[in-house]
Amino acid sequence: MPEYKVILAEPKFEGNIGAMARAMKNFGLKDLVLVNPGEIGEECYQRAMHAKDVLENVESHESLDMALRDLDYIVGTSGIESRNDRKHLRKNLSPKQFASKMADMEGNVGIIFGREDYGLYNTELEKCDTVVTVPASKEYPILNISHSASIIFYELFRAQGEDKEIREASRFERDKLFEHFKDLLDAVNYPEHKKKKTIVMFQRILGRAVLSKWEFHTLMGVFSKTLKTLEKSTIKPTKTP
Amino acid sequence: MPEYKVILAEPKFEGNIGAMARAMKNFGLKDLVLVNPGEIGEECYQRAMHAKDVLENVESHESLDMALRDLDYIVGTSGIESRNDRKHLRKNLSPKQFASKMADMEGNVGIIFGREDYGLYNTELEKCDTVVTVPASKEYPILNISHSASIIFYELFRAQGEDKEIREASRFERDKLFEHFKDLLDAVNYPEHKKKKTIVMFQRILGRAVLSKWEFHTLMGVFSKTLKTLEKSTIKPTKTP
Repeated sequence: MPEYKVILAEPKFEGNIGAMARAMKNFGLKDLVLVNPGEIGEECYQRAMHAKDVLENVESHESLDMALRDLDYIVGTSGIESRNDRKHLRKNLSPKQFASKMADMEGNVGIIFGREDYGLYNTELEKCDTVVTVPASKEYPILNISHSASIIFYELFRAQGEDKEIREASRFERDKLFEHFKDLLDAVNYPEHKKKKTIVMFQRILGRAVLSKWEFHTLMGVFSKTLKTLEKSTIKPTKTP
Repeated sequence: MPEYKVILAEPKFEGNIGAMARAMKNFGLKDLVLVNPGEIGEECYQRAMHAKDVLENVESHESLDMALRDLDYIVGTSGIESRNDRKHLRKNLSPKQFASKMADMEGNVGIIFGREDYGLYNTELEKCDTVVTVPASKEYPILNISHSASIIFYELFRAQGEDKEIREASRFERDKLFEHFKDLLDAVNYPEHKKKKTIVMFQRILGRAVLSKWEFHTLMGVFSKTLKTLEKSTIKPTKTP
């Protein structure tokens, strides 16, 4: 994983800086660099919520070039997708493509976000190794700066694999559950010619739902109780009319 | 593709409503529903930028239940991931998992965002078919509401473009299925204190699995047959030991 620096080029509104700090901390980023920011006051800290430490460690520069020293790889962000393929400056990566590129990279990577109104100038985009654009509706593709940052940070975070959920019950438990389901179909004289299809369907549904161990055990409990009730109440459950 | 309604439960800050409207329009969503909002004024419109049309078409309700009428599928959002596997209310989908589930669905889908401070109450989460959580840093996992919304909308937007089969059953059919499940628990003397939890769990599993009409009808058939067998074979099924 590279080390990321998030660079804001001449941010105008302190609220956006705070929102940016929060989004960074939400996805485990810590290094915020400001180029010629406006005043930073109370609103900025309010919007940062529990990311005050990001604001306190902020690095400020008078020019973008100063902010870009010591970086190994520079990434611009842009909300404008060119329709003209020849403008290579704007042949951009999606956040997901960008994140998967970064996954096996080392070094210092700077991600630059432009002004709230003009974004990054072409001369600034020229300094970038690549440009990331968040795909959005043609009708209104310009995102708020901290919204597009959140989406990019989210993809970087996901690419690190930290969001993997462990919740799948084991195959052994699943097979037990399918057996119970099959026993239930037998016990209620479910039509023979439909059985196989219905069992496969049940298996598919549970496969899509991805059950936790607790859910499997609870469902097992329901089946067991139903089977026991059927057994107790009829001597030959498979012979009921 | 389903029709989405974005529902904000008691949003406190008008700025967030505006930011939400902008994020919606950025990803092609139009229907915003507010439950007991605070005052909506200039800040809201400023933050909405070019999404004023979303604000002008807003629908307001006094209760969440009113806002949820006519929805076929209800999705909650929550920033808190439980470490406890048994808390099924919090066994949540990632935005990506959610988006891929929605890709081949039809009907009216409501996505509920909770209060800025408390999120959604448990009683509100219980009304949801599934819950989505944005994966984030353990150190500070609580995102700003319009940030998490942007990420969820972005995933929905990305998942578009693939036309798959329609497979969602309507809410009416689902409610029927849950009733059958409840009847089954009654018929087998399922422990009273576990019933509610088990029914909610069942609802969640099916919510995650996103059943087709055929799957729902087949499951209904299994339940009906089981209930009938229980009725026929015992005179008082609820009195079995």
